[in-house]
Amino acid sequence: MATRSHDPSQLFAAAYAGDRGALARLLSLVERGGDDARAAARLASPHVGKAYVVGITGAPGAGKSTLTSALIGELRKRGARVGVLAIDPSSPYTGGAILGDRVRMQDHTHDDKVYIRSMATRGHLGGLSLATSEAVRLLDATGHDWVIVETVGVGQVEVEIAGKADTTVVVVNPGWGDAVQANKAGLLEIADVFAINKADRDGVESTRRDLHAMIELTEFDETEWKPSVSATVATTGDGVAELLDAVLVHRAHAEKSGDLLHRREIRRREELREIVERRLELRARQVCSGAAWDDLESRVASGVLDPWSAADEMLRGVSA
Amino acid sequence: MATRSHDPSQLFAAAYAGDRGALARLLSLVERGGDDARAAARLASPHVGKAYVVGITGAPGAGKSTLTSALIGELRKRGARVGVLAIDPSSPYTGGAILGDRVRMQDHTHDDKVYIRSMATRGHLGGLSLATSEAVRLLDATGHDWVIVETVGVGQVEVEIAGKADTTVVVVNPGWGDAVQANKAGLLEIADVFAINKADRDGVESTRRDLHAMIELTEFDETEWKPSVSATVATTGDGVAELLDAVLVHRAHAEKSGDLLHRREIRRREELREIVERRLELRARQVCSGAAWDDLESRVASGVLDPWSAADEMLRGVSA
Repeated sequence: MATRSHDPSQLFAAAYAGDRGALARLLSLVERGGDDARAAARLASPHVGKAYVVGITGAPGAGKSTLTSALIGELRKRGARVGVLAIDPSSPYTGGAILGDRVRMQDHTHDDKVYIRSMATRGHLGGLSLATSEAVRLLDATGHDWVIVETVGVGQVEVEIAGKADTTVVVVNPGWGDAVQANKAGLLEIADVFAINKADRDGVESTRRDLHAMIELTEFDETEWKPSVSATVATTGDGVAELLDAVLVHRAHAEKSGDLLHRREIRRREELREIVERRLELRARQVCSGAAWDDLESRVASGVLDPWSAADEMLRGVSA
Repeated sequence: MATRSHDPSQLFAAAYAGDRGALARLLSLVERGGDDARAAARLASPHVGKAYVVGITGAPGAGKSTLTSALIGELRKRGARVGVLAIDPSSPYTGGAILGDRVRMQDHTHDDKVYIRSMATRGHLGGLSLATSEAVRLLDATGHDWVIVETVGVGQVEVEIAGKADTTVVVVNPGWGDAVQANKAGLLEIADVFAINKADRDGVESTRRDLHAMIELTEFDETEWKPSVSATVATTGDGVAELLDAVLVHRAHAEKSGDLLHRREIRRREELREIVERRLELRARQVCSGAAWDDLESRVASGVLDPWSAADEMLRGVSA
């Protein structure tokens, strides 16, 4: 029976037992941030570490959502339970278009072993990155074997979010080379596996050569993973099983070499930093409001108090 | 005699008495930030409010530096002492090019009533904005009648820096209209005076009409200042006296209407916010380092401690 509670521990217990409505409400708590989000994440903490996290990124129009949908299908064939976070770091105004692009994922909405969730920016610097960590943690703790995190582009936020994946798949298209010249270095930095999607178009082989040449030009340590290159046609499913196999090859390498453990350690360190920064940021917002603040601000505005003394007074005894 | 001290109060006393080397060292303290910067700014505080601050901004290549140089010349003719801050919010790598563009300002380097200083980003969010406030304050407190703050473009940082001026001059060129369509709203928001520079080229009149049409389409309150439009050829000096007169017309309006007082009040409020945010940011950096942090971070990285509890522990009793 579905729980109607808003108490994080009751919600977590229900979500853990398979209640999708409870999971949805927990994820909403996480998206809003605040104490309930933190409580939810704390409850999930002891149950994490079982899910394998795949990041999927690439330029708008590369076919990420269709490829994600095809990967879900392939993972389901192999018996896995799958959670998906579709992240939109851009303005909320583009939400409609993005959801439109993600229509193909709807194929899986009646499969109770697949859970798909869109997450939009909440307008806070660093907020989406932290919310994504917490959402991945919840999907992991509630029995999803694989978590796919899909983001657009390779901006600062996307790179941060890619850092939360165990394997990052960068989706490109035939003939991409000229268009994204400037971003190549950034792509190479985050890619574990390249997927040349829309591989039924001209130019697949030259794109493959281009990618391999780029990889060869990069210095890797002897034991370090070199990005592999797959070709897919997400709309027909061609090459998708091979792409998943390529992800599994990277996974095996990462597990054996210790890279996976190392990445996850770094990720937890990063998350701690994000939490501390975020809480000091919230604290700054609290400090800069209220009656005491208004009074000090007026005295500074009129020039009777200098801003450093006012800041000293305001920050005296502040704890976060 | 020039002081060799690094003590902010000795430096300030010397700079106040006209020692340019002492002023240069004070401005370096401000650029570095920290306690000495704060001490310098506090010393300057009682002496500020006499200088009139003009912001000059516009797209790269519009001729801002040449126009600034010409304005310095015009202000010197009228007997004023002038301080100039040439702000470069972009990467330090472009420093060379920017300095190259500013060669014309060198005309004034042997005039001891003109003080010119380049300030580059220190790589800190908000850092340049705060450093600019403090540098303006120092130039004001050390007897400069006019302070010119020159920035490139109309990005976030430039708009913040424009907010520090009593009058903002936006420099455009004939035929600008098509090129900067997207930025027009941003320009109009910050401009008190438009200068159509390079007015010896074709298209001055259509640019003037274009600007006036844009201004007419904007709603202003009855008593509110509407941006005025001047035309200049900075390389020959044509129109520069008229541009300075246009700035003086805006100044008279701002003084009479109370806008100037109001702007300066807002500026002091903003500065207080910036100081509080900056100090909490520095505090975050301090919190996220040291032996106690390393220990907590290791425990989080290995998974024996969850990041929220670690953050709680780290932030307990933190004051900023």
